[in-house]
Amino acid sequence: MSKQNKETLRILPLGGLGEVGKNMMAYEYDGHILVVDAGLMFPDNDMLGVDYIIPDFEYLRQNAKRVDGIIITHGHEDHIGAIQHLLAAVPAPVYATPLTRGLVEVKLARNGLANRATLIKIQAGETVQIGPFQVETFHVCHSIPDAIGLGITTPAGLIVHTGDYKFDQTPVDNWPTDFAKLAEFSGRGVTVLLADSTNSERPGWTQSERVIGPAFDEVFRTAPGRIIIATFASLIARMQQVADAAVRHGRKMAFVGMSMVDNAKIARNMGYLEVPDNTLVSIDEALHLKDKEVVLMCTGSQGEPSSIIGRLSAGTNRQFDVEPGDTIVLSSHPIPGNEEAINKTINRLIRRGAEVVYEAVLPVHVSGHASSEEQKLLLNLVRPKFFVPIHGELHQLKRHAVLARQVGIADENIVVVENGQVIELSDDKLSLGERMPGGYIFVEGESVGEIDLDVMREREQLARSGIVLITVTVDKYSNRLLKDPEVLTRGFISPDDADGLIAAVQKKVNDLVNGGGLDDEKLISDAVRSLLYNETRRRPMVFVAITKT
Amino acid sequence: MSKQNKETLRILPLGGLGEVGKNMMAYEYDGHILVVDAGLMFPDNDMLGVDYIIPDFEYLRQNAKRVDGIIITHGHEDHIGAIQHLLAAVPAPVYATPLTRGLVEVKLARNGLANRATLIKIQAGETVQIGPFQVETFHVCHSIPDAIGLGITTPAGLIVHTGDYKFDQTPVDNWPTDFAKLAEFSGRGVTVLLADSTNSERPGWTQSERVIGPAFDEVFRTAPGRIIIATFASLIARMQQVADAAVRHGRKMAFVGMSMVDNAKIARNMGYLEVPDNTLVSIDEALHLKDKEVVLMCTGSQGEPSSIIGRLSAGTNRQFDVEPGDTIVLSSHPIPGNEEAINKTINRLIRRGAEVVYEAVLPVHVSGHASSEEQKLLLNLVRPKFFVPIHGELHQLKRHAVLARQVGIADENIVVVENGQVIELSDDKLSLGERMPGGYIFVEGESVGEIDLDVMREREQLARSGIVLITVTVDKYSNRLLKDPEVLTRGFISPDDADGLIAAVQKKVNDLVNGGGLDDEKLISDAVRSLLYNETRRRPMVFVAITKT
Repeated sequence: MSKQNKETLRILPLGGLGEVGKNMMAYEYDGHILVVDAGLMFPDNDMLGVDYIIPDFEYLRQNAKRVDGIIITHGHEDHIGAIQHLLAAVPAPVYATPLTRGLVEVKLARNGLANRATLIKIQAGETVQIGPFQVETFHVCHSIPDAIGLGITTPAGLIVHTGDYKFDQTPVDNWPTDFAKLAEFSGRGVTVLLADSTNSERPGWTQSERVIGPAFDEVFRTAPGRIIIATFASLIARMQQVADAAVRHGRKMAFVGMSMVDNAKIARNMGYLEVPDNTLVSIDEALHLKDKEVVLMCTGSQGEPSSIIGRLSAGTNRQFDVEPGDTIVLSSHPIPGNEEAINKTINRLIRRGAEVVYEAVLPVHVSGHASSEEQKLLLNLVRPKFFVPIHGELHQLKRHAVLARQVGIADENIVVVENGQVIELSDDKLSLGERMPGGYIFVEGESVGEIDLDVMREREQLARSGIVLITVTVDKYSNRLLKDPEVLTRGFISPDDADGLIAAVQKKVNDLVNGGGLDDEKLISDAVRSLLYNETRRRPMVFVAITKT
Repeated sequence: MSKQNKETLRILPLGGLGEVGKNMMAYEYDGHILVVDAGLMFPDNDMLGVDYIIPDFEYLRQNAKRVDGIIITHGHEDHIGAIQHLLAAVPAPVYATPLTRGLVEVKLARNGLANRATLIKIQAGETVQIGPFQVETFHVCHSIPDAIGLGITTPAGLIVHTGDYKFDQTPVDNWPTDFAKLAEFSGRGVTVLLADSTNSERPGWTQSERVIGPAFDEVFRTAPGRIIIATFASLIARMQQVADAAVRHGRKMAFVGMSMVDNAKIARNMGYLEVPDNTLVSIDEALHLKDKEVVLMCTGSQGEPSSIIGRLSAGTNRQFDVEPGDTIVLSSHPIPGNEEAINKTINRLIRRGAEVVYEAVLPVHVSGHASSEEQKLLLNLVRPKFFVPIHGELHQLKRHAVLARQVGIADENIVVVENGQVIELSDDKLSLGERMPGGYIFVEGESVGEIDLDVMREREQLARSGIVLITVTVDKYSNRLLKDPEVLTRGFISPDDADGLIAAVQKKVNDLVNGGGLDDEKLISDAVRSLLYNETRRRPMVFVAITKT
């Protein structure tokens, strides 16, 4: 950027939906760009038909040559899920810790990009120089092993970027967050802290991942038949706890579903997941064992209809069905908006005779993110000059800002921005820079970005009251109908109730054409629309096609 | 019912969506029917275009002459919102306490049914004889005054039906739940208890409505400008607390929106809401006062786009806008499924410069339903022989059943059913009777029941990938196209990206008709569908209309 002087560091929150900097951020200094994370987001309930959403990284595409590297903080989908899209536009080297790297490799292979990217393995705690950015990585606890935060030094100052983190003092893998490194940064003087705001509205401390052990023990002790545990495919720490419980209670364990099987294999190969060989069985083997001898692990804890649990609840799973006596554990917290789908799934599983165990029944899940007391501890530990809450929706960032004020950070040194708002650090001052698009892009099938908000609004309109299609054939000389208008409806009215209404529409069109000499598609559809509104108080989309012959 | 003997009491949970007996139940004895409540439910996120949902009371319609009365437990929408539909089919007298009756009257008047129904006023604590049912009403605390539970005596035994309740020991109106009556029932011997299960998954006790007072005080003390408090229009208790805070802090109070204004007027006229005359102002007056001198109360705490708060957040409210300095309080708990909409609304309000206060910030809301410790107290107080959890989804009923087992009710004496499953009480035994439809009916505009699940599925399909309409005009002699096929899309692809794809569709149709001599609408639409799938991996609905001339 020509307008940027050499001493300015630019902070660019680039993605995605409502959560600021959650899925992608970039740092820019002296014409060089460092990208942090390349994740996807799942669509909101009103984003009809969308498969997933990626950040709008047009700025990076346009400045691809200036991107020196992409560093990934951990292997969850919301941090790696857009990597294939980003690499297609920005072929920079990707830096990641071993497990994260393994998960990125799987993702690239699935998208036909195996061996097409430069993946550079780093260890948590290692320092790498990426262009003008000296990046000191430090281990953080999260719900996946090998997660890191970043200390980024340029002549403009030291920036600490936490990534997703929590301060679990007794993590399952015995590897706590690197407090010493944070303290060392603090000693050196941190200019800007950018920290995870996900749980800024939760009071207290996030419970240790370890509390899940006793809850699992209770399930394993009391379950009369099979145990089926559902969680995210990338929740490696949860896999470890299930494996440990399986060993303690003498059950065999099987992973079900491609993403679970693949991720478990990588984690196990790399030493991040320990399951004894004689505990792990294939799903086929598991289904031939006695019910009391197995625990299955699969996806679907968010009520997703296409997941294993979703299919089990609907009775459409191919390999096996839910049976009375099964105990199903949903080991996750509802993502806001999914509560309804999850409750429906639980009800369906109960209806099929299963016992269902979820957060409200037993503590079978803890959050992977720091709660407000941990966030305050981080702020006191790092003692930054400036604070920029990230990884949260606006209301969560605002709460995080309140916490920062409580621990003594001056109000004018806290900057809350939304995606696309560039922040500039220069002469030890933080200020707002330009606004970039900072939006997001819908991915649906192989269409990336061809579905926009206008298309989404049309879908909403289609869905609200359905459609009415009318085909009219008119004699071009007499301008009279050659046959009755054909009327077809979808999503408007059930066929049992449609006859009278369709006859009324036909009569209306007949009157307009034969009576009124009308041959304008728009005028006819307006008239039909108002007829339907008067009859039903609803507004379907009406399409009229007139053919003159 | 001929097959029913005189000594059998039948319990019919009739509505609505997933919550058993929440919106409507009926009791039947010796050919006589007593209906309890006639409420509506709001549609799930996947029920596209539906305005609201009512219970399927076909059984009552068919047996309308045998319905001796309809008794309403309290004035919330989910208990009175279907009354006009029910009365149109079942013109029985309606029994209600004064406030409930007032709210029912408003609803009937709005639907052009004023003075067309027999409304019988009863006082909480009063006993009424409705056919063979001796109904002893008793006051319960809930988030609206004048709520009642029912003790229903027939020769088959004494049934206690709680309605929505909680055990607030310090309610704002100083009128606690009628423990004495419950104890009296217990002394007499309760055969069946049917109790509210809404909060069976919440540990502990629901906090007293009174804790909101200090939270409101903090808001009123610190708000630099206007205060706007959003809640449900029927939450009369909350109105009282806002009024009390307004008096304490010297602000004028105005209700905004028809339902708020109407409900407040009724509650005030009947003495259920005390607002001094010099505190209450109209919205027009309020808007001319200094910002620091007013508090407005309106709807929209669930993020409903058409509510006042929804419109304020979108900048489309007619009378006034949100301004920096405004403090907006969302005084309610998200209904499952609404979290996403509420969060978006909060973000939009923050973006407009408002301070937003909600549950996570301050205790500005408490639930109106008993939590699990209260539910256990109720069970111990009433000591029923049989227990039927109602007012909850299946998973909540299951949890309520667990609580009942914990307090010593024998497993075989607990009956968990879903809507439509009749329960029969005879010879002091509880057993399952017939299954009725027990479903629900969509209301949309003036269409009641014409929108069914098939129509809903079509809407989902329309919304998933949009539609493609193709009009083909063919010469009936040569079977060749008379002009290029017309292709129209909605919700499929944005116009900027459509040209190439539309040209490909036209070419395909051309090839099929002119090349292949095809004139079958289905075959052509199949071919286009597969072309579009190959190009985009998406499946829009394709409609082809061929006109031969």
